[in-house]
Amino acid sequence: MPYSIADSRRQIDELVVRRAEVFRQKQGIDLRTGHRVEAIDPQAKQVSGTTLEDRRFEIGFDKLLIATGASPRLATIPGGGLPGVMALKNLEDGRAIQGLLAAKTVRSAVILGMGYIALEMCEALRARGLAVDLIKPGPVFLPWLHPDLAVVVRQEVEASQVGVHLGRNLQRIEPAGEKGFKVLSDGPTLECGLVLVATGVAPNSQLAEKAGLQLGPQRSIHVDKCLMTSCPDIFAAGDCADAVHVVTGRDVWIPLALRANRAGWAAADNVTGRPVELPGVAGTAVFKVFDLQVARTGLNAAEAREAGFDPVETVIQSRSRAHAHPGASTIHVQMVADRRSGKLLGAQMVGREGVAHRINAPAVALHAGMTVADFIQCDLAYAPPFSPVWDPLLTAANQLSKAL
Amino acid sequence: MPYSIADSRRQIDELVVRRAEVFRQKQGIDLRTGHRVEAIDPQAKQVSGTTLEDRRFEIGFDKLLIATGASPRLATIPGGGLPGVMALKNLEDGRAIQGLLAAKTVRSAVILGMGYIALEMCEALRARGLAVDLIKPGPVFLPWLHPDLAVVVRQEVEASQVGVHLGRNLQRIEPAGEKGFKVLSDGPTLECGLVLVATGVAPNSQLAEKAGLQLGPQRSIHVDKCLMTSCPDIFAAGDCADAVHVVTGRDVWIPLALRANRAGWAAADNVTGRPVELPGVAGTAVFKVFDLQVARTGLNAAEAREAGFDPVETVIQSRSRAHAHPGASTIHVQMVADRRSGKLLGAQMVGREGVAHRINAPAVALHAGMTVADFIQCDLAYAPPFSPVWDPLLTAANQLSKAL
Repeated sequence: MPYSIADSRRQIDELVVRRAEVFRQKQGIDLRTGHRVEAIDPQAKQVSGTTLEDRRFEIGFDKLLIATGASPRLATIPGGGLPGVMALKNLEDGRAIQGLLAAKTVRSAVILGMGYIALEMCEALRARGLAVDLIKPGPVFLPWLHPDLAVVVRQEVEASQVGVHLGRNLQRIEPAGEKGFKVLSDGPTLECGLVLVATGVAPNSQLAEKAGLQLGPQRSIHVDKCLMTSCPDIFAAGDCADAVHVVTGRDVWIPLALRANRAGWAAADNVTGRPVELPGVAGTAVFKVFDLQVARTGLNAAEAREAGFDPVETVIQSRSRAHAHPGASTIHVQMVADRRSGKLLGAQMVGREGVAHRINAPAVALHAGMTVADFIQCDLAYAPPFSPVWDPLLTAANQLSKAL
Repeated sequence: MPYSIADSRRQIDELVVRRAEVFRQKQGIDLRTGHRVEAIDPQAKQVSGTTLEDRRFEIGFDKLLIATGASPRLATIPGGGLPGVMALKNLEDGRAIQGLLAAKTVRSAVILGMGYIALEMCEALRARGLAVDLIKPGPVFLPWLHPDLAVVVRQEVEASQVGVHLGRNLQRIEPAGEKGFKVLSDGPTLECGLVLVATGVAPNSQLAEKAGLQLGPQRSIHVDKCLMTSCPDIFAAGDCADAVHVVTGRDVWIPLALRANRAGWAAADNVTGRPVELPGVAGTAVFKVFDLQVARTGLNAAEAREAGFDPVETVIQSRSRAHAHPGASTIHVQMVADRRSGKLLGAQMVGREGVAHRINAPAVALHAGMTVADFIQCDLAYAPPFSPVWDPLLTAANQLSKAL
């Protein structure tokens, strides 16, 4: 949605991949919208709830798939519920923001939070000409990113005339003037026409929890590698469910699109009797903010330490193109490995080009359980417009190998 | 050099990374230019030859490294030696072409050959405003590339007003008019102001062969994983030497920059008594031609069959960006696996964006010996500006898995 909102000519509804009628008519699925499930009874193998018309319903099942997704963590501060304080989760949110921007009454926005969605929306709203401030209580910008890389991203955001307010505890949101708001904190008071809450999401696991199913990290629904919950006839997939991290072997909750999609297919296979195991996630993620690409896979040093590894870390700067090739820009690479085993544990990159797809090479290495010594030997592609002879990833791996 | 030649403001000499004096003064290396070695005596541990001043010299060694590179295969047809019929191997060739273009007397070029360098030079010369024709005896455009991908590249080249003459046997090159040439074949006679020979390179292995060292594929110098030749005190590295292919385990000669550079470092380690083994190459390569990126890693189906595999191949089309994201273009992916083992054997890609760095993911998978089933499970990066939710590589792997 941020990319749709960035462009006044686009409609949020272009993002719909398949409409409800297609499921019903072409695929013969009894798709019931307007049905709120309020309870799962694993023993009776039945779900029950209320329709939009306030009619009670009960539906029996042989197998049940819970695909309830995640919801934005809404602001719990006073004024967080004011009309016009918005989140960005479903298409209605997107339409509402598009409508507000189309009316051209809003000139400024305050975004609560500084994660992927906050930064993507920050870019989108700047593209629509709004003044934008970002604010959060934590003191560190992109705390999961190595500080040497995070500062590059922060500079890019600030160079785009965005206010970055770290370590600011919100006090309340107040209406101000005609359709405007004041966001009060222990720092500056920010006035704006739009408040966007982008403080992360939480798994919609309440139904599962009430039904007695085992929960995983961050109250996600725990599933095994076959997407089965702690009840053998109930499966869960998508942003509501956890996954195994391929580097740590531990359960994690990293709600991202590819895992959700892949888990959907695998759950279908398992429900219909074709056993499929998903090994898990590597925590690979990428986002764009203004002209920067920011990518990660695997663990950072703190996560590695927490998982019981003895992390050795390196950060290097390289170039996006060959020596003397015009148009090159800096690529920053962080890489971390385990001192004892020599295993690669993770990588992070920031740069103007050549970052988004490059992160997939260490992601594959993590799935393969490669050591840094293995990774150094990989035959990566070289041509002057795309890379130095030694790919920035190989330069980082060489440095990391010396540190090991 | 093609990228330097493409831009009239650039000087070929910008490509020099380190001058001879730096080796001598900063690194204390007795670098002797103007010394042509004419013989290696492995028993006496001595090289001998003649200087530019026609003086004989002999130099003894404890260890010898042969780093003689490769040379262009020059046209053996009548007229191939005419002044102005050029190759592009050393900086002098580049300077000569730059000089010719600066004089603005040349309006058209014929390039003999259609490999990477031919296509890069074709783009460079078009950028300098020349009419360009490509001609070769073989009937197939980029024969190592899957035909569905090769046709996309050919269309791009032809859309840039380049003449593509396949299956044409050259007869002779004749001088024509003032500083011009006629290129005669069993097809059309092509007139031009510049003939460029880009019919590939051959390893400079004559000295090694005369010294009785074992040769590898295509008369390259055979080395083991420590870069040692068949004589324990003589090493070889760079474009003159062979390598092991990590997919087939066989010796191959694929003279590319990363392997040459990596082999240089490893040879130095081994010569100085720090044993280092290089596992080999995956045949990863990328080039740019006009607005297309063309990349490969591993084997194509024919190479797989020749190496004793039972290849299963798939070709898919996907998009470079997410559903409904503006600016997306087609990415063509070919992928091949072994029917018996399920192992991934190779991949090829063509597209306008997101190809060059994406090829590194299957390259790493080849080094890790992954099956297609392993690769399908990799957690690759997704964000709307960079990829569909299912990366084109995963879509190809899914299709290939079904075919398996």
